[in-house]
Amino acid sequence: MVDASSQGSDADPRKAVVLLSGGLDSATTLAMAIDAGYECHSLAVDYGQRHRAELDAAARISQALNAMSHRVVQVDLRSIGGSALTADIDVPTEQTEGIPVTYVPARNTLMLSLALGLAETLAAESIFIGVNAVDYSGYPDCRPQFIAAFEDLTRLATKAGVEGHPFHIQSPLIHLTKAEIIQAGSALGLDYGQTISCYQADDSGRACGRCDSCRIRRAGFKEAGLPDPTRYYDEPVG
Amino acid sequence: MVDASSQGSDADPRKAVVLLSGGLDSATTLAMAIDAGYECHSLAVDYGQRHRAELDAAARISQALNAMSHRVVQVDLRSIGGSALTADIDVPTEQTEGIPVTYVPARNTLMLSLALGLAETLAAESIFIGVNAVDYSGYPDCRPQFIAAFEDLTRLATKAGVEGHPFHIQSPLIHLTKAEIIQAGSALGLDYGQTISCYQADDSGRACGRCDSCRIRRAGFKEAGLPDPTRYYDEPVG
Repeated sequence: MVDASSQGSDADPRKAVVLLSGGLDSATTLAMAIDAGYECHSLAVDYGQRHRAELDAAARISQALNAMSHRVVQVDLRSIGGSALTADIDVPTEQTEGIPVTYVPARNTLMLSLALGLAETLAAESIFIGVNAVDYSGYPDCRPQFIAAFEDLTRLATKAGVEGHPFHIQSPLIHLTKAEIIQAGSALGLDYGQTISCYQADDSGRACGRCDSCRIRRAGFKEAGLPDPTRYYDEPVG
Repeated sequence: MVDASSQGSDADPRKAVVLLSGGLDSATTLAMAIDAGYECHSLAVDYGQRHRAELDAAARISQALNAMSHRVVQVDLRSIGGSALTADIDVPTEQTEGIPVTYVPARNTLMLSLALGLAETLAAESIFIGVNAVDYSGYPDCRPQFIAAFEDLTRLATKAGVEGHPFHIQSPLIHLTKAEIIQAGSALGLDYGQTISCYQADDSGRACGRCDSCRIRRAGFKEAGLPDPTRYYDEPVG
């Protein structure tokens, strides 16, 4: 039996839920949160994405970084569709203008909702999310104003918020370039060979080298002046 | 293939996503939205709730009311836990003080996130949710200020919002008593015998007559002066 009566009323400021996709950004975020002294509970969301190797990577990274716990929540977004990552739309291999087709409708709102539910259940005060407003592929829900609006929402949305314990949404990467993210994670000893950024990684976690996410990641290592540990199944572009 | 390029940029003001649980409130909301002339796409969320008969009821109600489509999104909240509806906590049979253990952490935030994703995919401008701030069991995410904050969030969270097409979150029941909701739905010809409110309904949809939700529903029919079509498997309380 869970003691429901204690939930939320004594949120622990050193406890955090960390959204962990298995990609470079979220792994860096987890490393930063652990380095800052948080007791971290990682949460991966299985939303029917094409790149399932990411989920395996998330579990490995959580264990390698000694997070307190790791959970996977299954959300089948295929019935909603609307993105190249979950529906039958081709992933583009060329740079495109505007918001790309890999945008998943309301994805970060959904991710943060799930993290919020877990944070309230665990009485964790902070939620970490590895969004980035610099090299962010143009997704609207990666911007600082979105994160701030979601934090405001937690005051009204939850039992804990109503009882005077709002949640703190932390996005430590938001103003960093990809190169700065890679430098920060490397300084913390993070092994980026364990992370997967590719939208169409194969089952063993090798990357295509051609999608938006691969191009941004590759350029990041180059700019950071650090060796790129990514394994490719194809000849990378650019 | 889905034409992703048109999503969100031409949201249809007469198209709506309606969250439909199979309960009395959401069924009334769907009847109201259809009566108001909206092309309604109903969305049920299977979040691992105990009362699975509700999901069957949702599909039946959507068909009976001639909604344009019905979808079920699976979200397995059991890995998050924290509520008597999804975790191993007993459902109370007596009136309790404050926010009850049947509160699901961040549930309406999650429901609205999923509806938002679908609304953006379908280019629907409105999202209907049957929350109610009068006979609402004390849940924080059933209040008008929460709904308003979520509507604000959609301006920042989505491709459509960023492109100048924010979503409208409609909660037509929010200030109605349970009796007024029942009167409104009955006037629209809604058959409440198809709806299930009970937190621990049996597989055939019969109600316990004793949980919070049963007590509120029963009192509503009494106050509305209308016959209660609910089938009980036990002797109702009160």
